[in-house]
Amino acid sequence: MEIEPVMNIAKRRGFVFPSSEIYGGLSGFFDLGPVGLLLRRKIENSWREFFIKSQDNIFEIETSIIMHEKVWKASGHLDGFTDPLTQCRKCHSFYRADNIIEEKTGKFVESLNTEELTELIKKNKLKCPKCKGDLGEAKIFNLMLSSNIGPVTGNVAYLRPETAQGIFTNFKNILVSTRAALPFGVAQIGYSYRNEISPRQWIIRLRELRQMEIEYFFNPDKISVPDREVLKTKIPIVTREVQKKENFEAVKKEAGNLVKEKIIPNELIAYFIAKEFLWYQQLGIPSSALRFRHMQPEETPHYSKGNFDMEINFDFGWKEATGNAYRTDHDLSTHMKHSGTDFSVVEDGKKIVPHVVEPSFGIDRAIYATLLFCYRDGKERGWEWFEFPSKIAPYVAGVYPLMNKDKLPEKAREVYEMLKKCWDVFYDGSGSIGKRYARADEIGTPYCITIDHDTLKDNSVTIRDRNTTKQIRVKIKDLTNIIWKLLNEEIKFEKAGS
Amino acid sequence: MEIEPVMNIAKRRGFVFPSSEIYGGLSGFFDLGPVGLLLRRKIENSWREFFIKSQDNIFEIETSIIMHEKVWKASGHLDGFTDPLTQCRKCHSFYRADNIIEEKTGKFVESLNTEELTELIKKNKLKCPKCKGDLGEAKIFNLMLSSNIGPVTGNVAYLRPETAQGIFTNFKNILVSTRAALPFGVAQIGYSYRNEISPRQWIIRLRELRQMEIEYFFNPDKISVPDREVLKTKIPIVTREVQKKENFEAVKKEAGNLVKEKIIPNELIAYFIAKEFLWYQQLGIPSSALRFRHMQPEETPHYSKGNFDMEINFDFGWKEATGNAYRTDHDLSTHMKHSGTDFSVVEDGKKIVPHVVEPSFGIDRAIYATLLFCYRDGKERGWEWFEFPSKIAPYVAGVYPLMNKDKLPEKAREVYEMLKKCWDVFYDGSGSIGKRYARADEIGTPYCITIDHDTLKDNSVTIRDRNTTKQIRVKIKDLTNIIWKLLNEEIKFEKAGS
Repeated sequence: MEIEPVMNIAKRRGFVFPSSEIYGGLSGFFDLGPVGLLLRRKIENSWREFFIKSQDNIFEIETSIIMHEKVWKASGHLDGFTDPLTQCRKCHSFYRADNIIEEKTGKFVESLNTEELTELIKKNKLKCPKCKGDLGEAKIFNLMLSSNIGPVTGNVAYLRPETAQGIFTNFKNILVSTRAALPFGVAQIGYSYRNEISPRQWIIRLRELRQMEIEYFFNPDKISVPDREVLKTKIPIVTREVQKKENFEAVKKEAGNLVKEKIIPNELIAYFIAKEFLWYQQLGIPSSALRFRHMQPEETPHYSKGNFDMEINFDFGWKEATGNAYRTDHDLSTHMKHSGTDFSVVEDGKKIVPHVVEPSFGIDRAIYATLLFCYRDGKERGWEWFEFPSKIAPYVAGVYPLMNKDKLPEKAREVYEMLKKCWDVFYDGSGSIGKRYARADEIGTPYCITIDHDTLKDNSVTIRDRNTTKQIRVKIKDLTNIIWKLLNEEIKFEKAGS
Repeated sequence: MEIEPVMNIAKRRGFVFPSSEIYGGLSGFFDLGPVGLLLRRKIENSWREFFIKSQDNIFEIETSIIMHEKVWKASGHLDGFTDPLTQCRKCHSFYRADNIIEEKTGKFVESLNTEELTELIKKNKLKCPKCKGDLGEAKIFNLMLSSNIGPVTGNVAYLRPETAQGIFTNFKNILVSTRAALPFGVAQIGYSYRNEISPRQWIIRLRELRQMEIEYFFNPDKISVPDREVLKTKIPIVTREVQKKENFEAVKKEAGNLVKEKIIPNELIAYFIAKEFLWYQQLGIPSSALRFRHMQPEETPHYSKGNFDMEINFDFGWKEATGNAYRTDHDLSTHMKHSGTDFSVVEDGKKIVPHVVEPSFGIDRAIYATLLFCYRDGKERGWEWFEFPSKIAPYVAGVYPLMNKDKLPEKAREVYEMLKKCWDVFYDGSGSIGKRYARADEIGTPYCITIDHDTLKDNSVTIRDRNTTKQIRVKIKDLTNIIWKLLNEEIKFEKAGS
């Protein structure tokens, strides 16, 4: 499993382009081409359906990307959203001190301060990976991007490093406008910015990234989950104990039982974790490449009652794709203190500050994983293709006239216009039909509809299945209905033909 | 027609909140609440359907918000995307020099340089609107927001002031990945940033704004429009001649004829302008509040062969909502020169650099106009409401049990779950049915579905029409189909009942 060929086809077929590429690119920034944007939109819509619309009490909002300095002072990001930095004394390259140490020593150093990191750099005689020069002291570097707002210099605001703060600061506005009662959630999809010292691994470590976050507010004395069935899902968990061993592996346990075993702090976290396990599989990622790691105490903020990272086993190893945190009332209480706004709600005649659990998804990593796991090399077919699950495929179907004559294009256009009302489909009339099938496969199109001379006689068309390359023949009048049923897995492809 | 009551209800019901409000707000930044986000999404989708999906040759992409400094050097924004600034010598407030002069003298000064503006400030003895202090010299102020990328100071990149440059710099990537041939368009929806000196008028002059742009590339020797019928649309035009008069008015002429009269430079601009005139009316804006103004030579960039602003007659007067420009080959040629990348295409055996027309829409202004023109005060009903066209209403329907007993809520939930599969709908079980109707009206919900005791007997429900408050009774099994037909205006409300 390699990412190189995936990156190549992703650029060639319009999934992902490097930003500002004609000027040498801008490290940590990427553009989505026509096919990539369709894929991302489908992944976002799938998430919205599965996590938001399946419930009645989660509201989606979209808040400004740039927010007031005081927001970040209150949230702790101004002081604490930092990475330790070290610079090569010879070639002046910058590195994350903790990464350099972890890579060379295998030690886990996330909780160490700059003095301790500097000590480890010296003790292990760590050198610059580029020029072998000496590395300097570890220093604190704030990861927020800032910008000067208005004509007066020094009027600094920050590009949000997470979408969550736009939810917390609007807590009262949302409460008043929706008349919501606990428990309820607020979701946001949008860009966040992190001034990574060394962006890398394509769209994994980005400076401009996209998140999907939910803040689910509740009364800690009255925890209820929207659907108890979900708690019966067996999820792959890596407990704090287990990960101390070498070559540890996740064990599968029922999400609800992990609460009873006091590994997961409450049923709401267990509920979201279980849903995440189900959702990522809908993106074509195998369950064996998913696990939930209970973060160690030194990786967990002091106010959190438990953090669980959903990790994916990428080509380069396990990496966080969704973070889950039980943030208690920390965020609302902090903003109450700093702003003087009252965020308390009355429950059973008692004023309380709601607690919150936060599942936080990185979309770019979901796209990376989808591309990686759905990629099929060209060994068998002679061309590469993507086995995207039908519901997230950029296009549902391509429509083709077998030849560009005998009124076949006109008939194909009719079919195309009909299908376009329901789905994203494309029309392709150029090159041999084999080449057109290959191009459709390359962008993971589940179905190819071909209009031939028989179509003119009996109004039937062929549907070619991407996964099997098998074909069936159906009537045009049944086409929409059959594709609908195929997408919803109500019928099997082989049995859909007439 | 006033915006004050609209702003109030927009905040109270979750359309628009000021950003960072609990910390005093951040001028020029706003958040969308749950209802506002639904409204914006519907406006964007309506635009996508009408301008993008109606054609087969327009591709939508999404490029990074932050782009390389060299992009903005090449595009001219680093040198030319500026406003003239003047500062009060007494209270140090900043103003746009041109605005201050235009407001006080009524003169049009967009083409003047800073020396000439300074001269006019002195000559007219213009004072600070706040403290009546003297105003200083006019100075150039760049409107782009910048940020330092990476740990090295001085490594500056810019937040895009328009989405268009992400399209131009990717021209070759798009051409290769889509195999498109001229003419074809590339569209983008997304955030842009302008460091306005004095943001004002709610969501009109913003620092964080959202655009919908199309760059339509073509061979200037082979102009063809996708649909010639559109050219027959009569549009309200303000020619350069007409606007020299006082109290000028637009005249209605066929878009195609304006090309023949050489007022509009080519049929593609005429085509997009005509479509804009039709689309804005779909947002509930009356045709009398729309006009196209041919920009004067001093308002038009040197490379443009014609700029036309679509203006809306807002509560405060006429203001641009969409700009149309025939930018020739300026953008592609400039980036070719600066980057060394070849953007030429071969047409009839000849290498050419494509020309481009650019319709550029401001979404925030479309939202402002929609809210303004669809707002109905409370005089008649006792509560305010929005008469949104059904297709862009945030929610299509509310679903209500008449009372919270006798299994009515269970039945209402069933109906709600059924409708939720097709549309954005909400469930509301609290308060009197009259209050619930009022709340639905306040966010412009076209239909209210009520489940009562008769429902339990004969599986029928009432539908209440927002515009007339009339009710009809229909069978639950026909409900989806009837709402579908109502939304598509295939049936009249009064005749939809059984």
